[in-house]
Amino acid sequence: MDERLQRTVEALRESGADWAVLSGVDSIAYALGYVPAIETGVSSFSAGPTLAIIGRDGAAGLLGVPSETAMPREGTIILYNDYGASHAQPASACYRRSLADLRRVLGVGDGRIAFEPATHPAIADAELGAATIDLTPAFRRQRMTKTAAEITALRRSAGVAAIGQTRMMEAIQPGLTELELFAKIRGAMEGAAGARIAVGGDLLSGVARTAGMSGWPTDRIIETGDAVISDLAPRIDGYWGDSCTTIVLGTPTLPQARLFAAARHALDHAIAEIRPGMTASAVHRMIRGVVQSAGFDYPHHTGHSIGTAPHEHPRLCDGEQTVLRPGMVLMVEPGAYDPAIGGARTEWMLHLTETGCVPLAPFPLRVAVSA
Amino acid sequence: MDERLQRTVEALRESGADWAVLSGVDSIAYALGYVPAIETGVSSFSAGPTLAIIGRDGAAGLLGVPSETAMPREGTIILYNDYGASHAQPASACYRRSLADLRRVLGVGDGRIAFEPATHPAIADAELGAATIDLTPAFRRQRMTKTAAEITALRRSAGVAAIGQTRMMEAIQPGLTELELFAKIRGAMEGAAGARIAVGGDLLSGVARTAGMSGWPTDRIIETGDAVISDLAPRIDGYWGDSCTTIVLGTPTLPQARLFAAARHALDHAIAEIRPGMTASAVHRMIRGVVQSAGFDYPHHTGHSIGTAPHEHPRLCDGEQTVLRPGMVLMVEPGAYDPAIGGARTEWMLHLTETGCVPLAPFPLRVAVSA
Repeated sequence: MDERLQRTVEALRESGADWAVLSGVDSIAYALGYVPAIETGVSSFSAGPTLAIIGRDGAAGLLGVPSETAMPREGTIILYNDYGASHAQPASACYRRSLADLRRVLGVGDGRIAFEPATHPAIADAELGAATIDLTPAFRRQRMTKTAAEITALRRSAGVAAIGQTRMMEAIQPGLTELELFAKIRGAMEGAAGARIAVGGDLLSGVARTAGMSGWPTDRIIETGDAVISDLAPRIDGYWGDSCTTIVLGTPTLPQARLFAAARHALDHAIAEIRPGMTASAVHRMIRGVVQSAGFDYPHHTGHSIGTAPHEHPRLCDGEQTVLRPGMVLMVEPGAYDPAIGGARTEWMLHLTETGCVPLAPFPLRVAVSA
Repeated sequence: MDERLQRTVEALRESGADWAVLSGVDSIAYALGYVPAIETGVSSFSAGPTLAIIGRDGAAGLLGVPSETAMPREGTIILYNDYGASHAQPASACYRRSLADLRRVLGVGDGRIAFEPATHPAIADAELGAATIDLTPAFRRQRMTKTAAEITALRRSAGVAAIGQTRMMEAIQPGLTELELFAKIRGAMEGAAGARIAVGGDLLSGVARTAGMSGWPTDRIIETGDAVISDLAPRIDGYWGDSCTTIVLGTPTLPQARLFAAARHALDHAIAEIRPGMTASAVHRMIRGVVQSAGFDYPHHTGHSIGTAPHEHPRLCDGEQTVLRPGMVLMVEPGAYDPAIGGARTEWMLHLTETGCVPLAPFPLRVAVSA
């Protein structure tokens, strides 16, 4: 049994349940390695989301949609007919019948069921009864540190993000639109992955857009002197990478250089200082303090964990009392923003060791790219 | 009030409800024009999906996620805090409180609520009670024909798909991988849209992959003599386009030409013959019969409606008794597949008029592209 399935079992035991029903895409990817494409949303012929059922002894099963082509790492799979050539059976009836079959195959009986309220669909209640135990808090705790297999997967995703950032620095030139630059970046990452991949993040150029912190690429034309924030989050085989750098095309102005330096020094400080035993909120205050000391600030979190979801817990923000532990992987993404100058942000993936942290697949951070 | 909101109200009245709670991304896009990005999935910090509540008098409100940047066409919007810099409030508490606020603002009281079982989240039950009326069948009926604004939107999406197909025929050359070709196609469509867009469909080359009918691009290298199935489904401002063509790079063999001709003639036949009053299943049998007469077959549906979801009802398949009406927009996608030769498929968007049908933004269908 994969360690991730063991930890899922541990979470359902902690919750006081006999069975866990997983409905989140990231949860199912974690527990069973079932990774359908997400880029086009759920099939509009489906009668409900893919569901996984996990038992205390590690028995595992999946109610899947045939039009999703992924396969689980382990466990039974039952596919219901959402998309057949015949319309004789409404998909909702097929879904309910297949869920009843899965329940019987696994021997769920009238055991206590823990579920995920954010994504658990109403259609499942008719077969499973109204679930009452929330799996979320215990499952979140189990997923905060990463297994060895996850570190390998995250290192690969970090590597693909680094390939994207390197391509960004090679490809940028005056006259490209943000969308054209992003297409080159995505092409490099998909070439490295050998597949279409979902990509989150931001691509922003110019004063107003970089000062605005977030947004997808537009048809804005990049000119000499523009800063570009490139925040790239590719998903490879179910695991997300994340990354951010900021460059100026041509020669940075002094204020641009100061903005970049503030974000860069905060990230350097993070790598030097973050270690197990600190609380997440203390890290947030420490890193934000570096940027504030340089005369700038950022109104967003300092970072977050990452895995089969692009944002996981703990978050590095005010009020988050979680104590950092070896085996966590944290995104650290200090920024510096000024409406008159623009914005800069830097972000690497940091793997917490027993004594400190090391970046996974870091890429060069440099403020200037010649035009 | 937009006609789509009026039709949503009509669906909830038909269902015997006082209020409708919408949880499907496509449903919310339809009723309120709220179109968040979907390419990276739901925010993993969110405590539930975006929900819309609609009343019998057209009162409308949305519980939205601040990290989604879209805005509704009309109605109240309440954003809950899923992503703030402070972690003091769990997102689930914020979500429930904001849903209670929205319920109060709209005056939902203890009215009867219709909902969408496939996507309705368990977290909503605590505030709204367990919903019992299924909105899906009536809402599906209301959305089968398209409003004038939808025809305009779908024509634009068809035009972007046509730009992608044209770019495919210009850009293809021996030695490109499927992924590289797809990147050029996507770049042309995103350039035309002025934005990142979700793209569904298939890109397949060679005998085995085209005979397999569906799949995303891989790092397979396209060579002279290969057939390529290019099925492109871009989503522009919430409305999906769809399209398919098949070309051979170089000179088609006689069997390849026969395969293409079978699919092409079936589509020609569809345009000549499809008219209001026919049942969806009769159209399926008629078009499939054309391919069968040519000595080939396809094991998938003949087509489907399209709108804010990539696949909508009616489907053109066995058992679907819906009678076609003016104002429907139907994808018609006959194929011809043979394991020894490969596959071919052709697909345009057909707008049903009073007397027949006309393609929306058709693109050239030709079997050969010079290598």
